[in-house]
Amino acid sequence: MSEPLRLGIAGLGTVGTGIVKIVQTHGDMLTARTGRGVTITAVSARSRGKDRGVDLSAYAWEDDPVALARRDDVDLVIEVMGGEDGPAKATTETALKAGKHVVTANKAMLALHGQALAQLAEANGVALRYEAAVAGGIPIVKALTEGLAANGIQRVMGVMNGTCNYILTVMEGTGADYADVLKDAQALGYAEADPTVDVGGIDAAHKLALLSSAAFGTQVDFDGVKIEGIERIELTDIKDAADMGYRIKLLGVARMNADGLEQRMQPCLVPAHSPLGQLEGVTNMVVVEGDFVGQTVFQGPGAGEGPTASAVMGDVVDIARGLVMPVFGQPANSLAKAKRSSTGADANYYLRCMLEDRPGALATVATILGKHGISINRMRQYDHDGNAAPVVIVTHKTNRAELDGALGEITKSDVSVVAPVAIRIETV
Amino acid sequence: MSEPLRLGIAGLGTVGTGIVKIVQTHGDMLTARTGRGVTITAVSARSRGKDRGVDLSAYAWEDDPVALARRDDVDLVIEVMGGEDGPAKATTETALKAGKHVVTANKAMLALHGQALAQLAEANGVALRYEAAVAGGIPIVKALTEGLAANGIQRVMGVMNGTCNYILTVMEGTGADYADVLKDAQALGYAEADPTVDVGGIDAAHKLALLSSAAFGTQVDFDGVKIEGIERIELTDIKDAADMGYRIKLLGVARMNADGLEQRMQPCLVPAHSPLGQLEGVTNMVVVEGDFVGQTVFQGPGAGEGPTASAVMGDVVDIARGLVMPVFGQPANSLAKAKRSSTGADANYYLRCMLEDRPGALATVATILGKHGISINRMRQYDHDGNAAPVVIVTHKTNRAELDGALGEITKSDVSVVAPVAIRIETV
Repeated sequence: MSEPLRLGIAGLGTVGTGIVKIVQTHGDMLTARTGRGVTITAVSARSRGKDRGVDLSAYAWEDDPVALARRDDVDLVIEVMGGEDGPAKATTETALKAGKHVVTANKAMLALHGQALAQLAEANGVALRYEAAVAGGIPIVKALTEGLAANGIQRVMGVMNGTCNYILTVMEGTGADYADVLKDAQALGYAEADPTVDVGGIDAAHKLALLSSAAFGTQVDFDGVKIEGIERIELTDIKDAADMGYRIKLLGVARMNADGLEQRMQPCLVPAHSPLGQLEGVTNMVVVEGDFVGQTVFQGPGAGEGPTASAVMGDVVDIARGLVMPVFGQPANSLAKAKRSSTGADANYYLRCMLEDRPGALATVATILGKHGISINRMRQYDHDGNAAPVVIVTHKTNRAELDGALGEITKSDVSVVAPVAIRIETV
Repeated sequence: MSEPLRLGIAGLGTVGTGIVKIVQTHGDMLTARTGRGVTITAVSARSRGKDRGVDLSAYAWEDDPVALARRDDVDLVIEVMGGEDGPAKATTETALKAGKHVVTANKAMLALHGQALAQLAEANGVALRYEAAVAGGIPIVKALTEGLAANGIQRVMGVMNGTCNYILTVMEGTGADYADVLKDAQALGYAEADPTVDVGGIDAAHKLALLSSAAFGTQVDFDGVKIEGIERIELTDIKDAADMGYRIKLLGVARMNADGLEQRMQPCLVPAHSPLGQLEGVTNMVVVEGDFVGQTVFQGPGAGEGPTASAVMGDVVDIARGLVMPVFGQPANSLAKAKRSSTGADANYYLRCMLEDRPGALATVATILGKHGISINRMRQYDHDGNAAPVVIVTHKTNRAELDGALGEITKSDVSVVAPVAIRIETV
């Protein structure tokens, strides 16, 4: 039996503490499963004195995570500090250059520097793994890069931000407005004081960019993700969508079109009875479609101490067993630079218009849509007070450019009271 | 770059043909992802002349799969012939002894001979992999033995026989009886002419026994699985269960209790709004609960050419990348012999009684249940023609032995028209 794999943990927040708990709780099991055991040699965090509820006395302490990454008695550095640059990146680079494996939960760092870090890891013959960076406890990176690796992937999509899904679920369940639910979520600790990264879709877009790379063999292209958050979702859209048989989710979709890679993170309508439509609360879900396997669905907790630590340690187990494979499933030098799809695939859309309540208003909208080649699948006009009549339309599949043209014309027409809302419907 | 990994395929039915298609379709991608490429050297099947819709002319032909397993130009044998003994086992043993890796989709062979074959593989330093044997295209063996390997697993459960789930779904949807739906399923090719292995729960129990071993570090113990098929599920139970908020599934459950391993494959009630309760048709689902990760859910196609071939080739990719790990996640010699749980965990039960329609009938049943310490959560008596009143009871958690005692007394009492039906409710 080989010597135990020696871990250095950089960061002792929730996730770092969870990792310590796993190693302390499951030492024998980890030895049985890896054939060599896993030990912690050193840890590093900002505040040494803080009580974290775990006994750290057996581990060396480093104030500086970069010094931890240089230690001779560390084989693998776990980076769970967070932050796209700064100490996290410096620690990761130092460890890789020193020939040490790195396991990280840092989606922002990899979304922005994944290609360079992957090249660095592979040049040094070490592993750089990030299961915990995407969809928490769900082993989805492993599924894409290993279990489903023999498939040409057609589409990857998922709900990968628990905060957003929680807010949308509560809005639907309670009828409360976005702003009120967000305030409650912040009070409960489900949303950050500055919620922009979550509700703005950036966090989820980081994750999507990583999955795209693993799925399509392309370099990580975070800037290529079209991002739209949930801030502008109104209760009426949630209700009207439900009435049409849909639910609204902040959905990430990555798909390889004929003209290039399409990556979108935006609110979408999904069929209420699909797995994505049934997803509640903070749970994450990723759907993968491959040319041989068909559709597979992965669901689990997207965040939190236990799930994230589980994902980190799953990577550690692989490395302890001797698995060192390319970061994104094939050598970083062989990853194609992603050509971005200009318009994206055609889709059905949900449109909500507020029209003057007078003869010919609906005809005007229908005429504009027709002129742009957009045909109507279903339409409902709702009862209303006042002069603005809410009209909800589900279109047949249409091109986004044509739709934008039509929306502009509707807005400028004399029958539209407020600019129409358009939300993409993702077929699942 | 290393030499390509050379495959010999034993069995050219649906799955074997699917594997040939993947290798022929995705050659370049497999080379990129494995760093060495994957080729097929030789194939073997019963009938050489049969048109399988794929070009086999570039591969050597062996009439005898055991001869294929001995070929010097084969590094890895794919066993997709099926059958628990006979050629499948002989081929597997020959290949392992010759120092060749084996990937198999053969759940029956592994359920019955898994321990011996794992020891043989590990003694010869080669891989024996079986992702395709459990839940088709879902990479669930990988999730258990790798991605979630740092968790103490608490429970694994799943719907792993598409035929049964299809029959139950159609019974509920159409109101047709079991026998009629089975006949239709046979006509459509969803059920075998001899459906016993499927509807009797044996096929699914093979799969559960394999998952148990990977989850709990125990030797495969197929004989320890309590098996009950769906043959006796009546339409009225499906309807009454739905009325109480449940759906009936042929559910496999493996759990480590204080007194040993509990493995059951039997019809269960699950909450209609849980992921398992929402599962429709031939799709499979496996739920894994770990002490750190919490609950994760995996869904996908459980059978068919593409999904099964995808799972086989996922294993091939791992081996091509150099991963050789213990068959059940830890060395076979270290797997404990599973001590069987005598009674299993306490559970809620659904009871359907047919009682004489006269004063005191319900009191008799309630008294018997009370005597056995079984308390009632919910009870409904339904409108009825004739003298037998259908009474449906959901119990609080109870011990199965006490329940069996009570059921025996109810059956013998003078108020029971037919023996009561008891179906376990699995909390999810």
